[in-house]
Amino acid sequence: MQSHHIVSAYDDELKYLTRKVAAMGGQAERLVDQAIAALVNADAALAKKVIADDTILDEAQREIDDKSIVLIAKRQPVAGDLREIIGAIRISADLERVGDLGKNVAKRVVAVSEGRQPVSLFRGLQALAELALTQLKEVLDVYASRSVERIEFVRARDNQIDAMYTSLFRELLTYMMEDPRNITPCTHLLFCAKNIERIGDHATNIAETIYYVVTGDQMPIDRPKEDKTDKVVMPVEIAAK
Amino acid sequence: MQSHHIVSAYDDELKYLTRKVAAMGGQAERLVDQAIAALVNADAALAKKVIADDTILDEAQREIDDKSIVLIAKRQPVAGDLREIIGAIRISADLERVGDLGKNVAKRVVAVSEGRQPVSLFRGLQALAELALTQLKEVLDVYASRSVERIEFVRARDNQIDAMYTSLFRELLTYMMEDPRNITPCTHLLFCAKNIERIGDHATNIAETIYYVVTGDQMPIDRPKEDKTDKVVMPVEIAAK
Repeated sequence: MQSHHIVSAYDDELKYLTRKVAAMGGQAERLVDQAIAALVNADAALAKKVIADDTILDEAQREIDDKSIVLIAKRQPVAGDLREIIGAIRISADLERVGDLGKNVAKRVVAVSEGRQPVSLFRGLQALAELALTQLKEVLDVYASRSVERIEFVRARDNQIDAMYTSLFRELLTYMMEDPRNITPCTHLLFCAKNIERIGDHATNIAETIYYVVTGDQMPIDRPKEDKTDKVVMPVEIAAK
Repeated sequence: MQSHHIVSAYDDELKYLTRKVAAMGGQAERLVDQAIAALVNADAALAKKVIADDTILDEAQREIDDKSIVLIAKRQPVAGDLREIIGAIRISADLERVGDLGKNVAKRVVAVSEGRQPVSLFRGLQALAELALTQLKEVLDVYASRSVERIEFVRARDNQIDAMYTSLFRELLTYMMEDPRNITPCTHLLFCAKNIERIGDHATNIAETIYYVVTGDQMPIDRPKEDKTDKVVMPVEIAAK
């Protein structure tokens, strides 16, 4: 009986950890969602809330880290259980970073709303954010359901995010060239777009971690997770106008 | 004798892990150093080498991760040894990301060299990179020497890096406003500067991990690691010129 009791307490601890990671995922999603809403609606009050809420994710990560390490030391897990705990440490680090990126978008709300950007830019940014959020949401669903066979969508969508980000990058540069008064707000929007693109990368990281947790194997190293804007050079004709 | 043999093999495994992390630190430093040199000298061949070399860091991280997990499963470490192994996992993740950031700078070399930027911009970027590299170097020294009492320098220097990055950010925006032909190359330089600022953040992360490994405590959460450019709005007079 005693041994049964111990095993079951251990199970509870493991389950607590995964539930905590899943909850943190939901919080990260909400934070990014609100950050984008604050940006698109120039809502400084919501931006302020997002910036404050980010500490919830910092604290969640710290708790998951602490609990994981205590669990390893106390239970000396091997195989699947050990991967589960290492997975919790990794995923919570990615989610904490997602929160930082959302916060960073929120922090630019005031600087962006000083200018008057074309509505199409916000539409582009919103579409990019929706794609990144869908990516995050599906990855967290896979974490909950353990259905790693569904993980291939991640790479396909990461390519879409990259393509959308690159086209937004070009569009922002064009607006900057058309009118120097667009330069400051569009630069902040560029960084917002970059932050959102990075959220997609973290979703991909999480997918890779889940794959490892469930299968014990690493996903093949070859993957698209790359910023493709590094070679973007705008034609000088536009600049010379 | 048998037990002595086992303990000593375990010690060797732990030492191998820390040596591997230290070596990875040296590789990351070199990669960033070369990325900056490639950028400043518009050296496309060196940039190409840096981009290729980044896989060395990817592989090093994967090896450290694998070895760490095997070590935990096999040796069931507690207390200091467990922190040492968890520390290796975390630090190698930060170093892998430093490599990515260096690679990202290298990837922009071609787009930047299309324009002719004022020398002062490169001087600013070089100074920023030197500060970030010194930060990384000292943090790795602390990792080797375990002298955590020296760790306070990290926060002071991170403030310096942030201040320098903010002034570079303003300078780049000014150049963009002066001549639209500067917009494309200066945008790439903005991202290079941001990447370098992030390298400083990762050095700070590593410092925090070392503190945890050595003391068993978390460093207080309050810290400067923040991008301060989010509120930068350039005066419209410059834009209206």
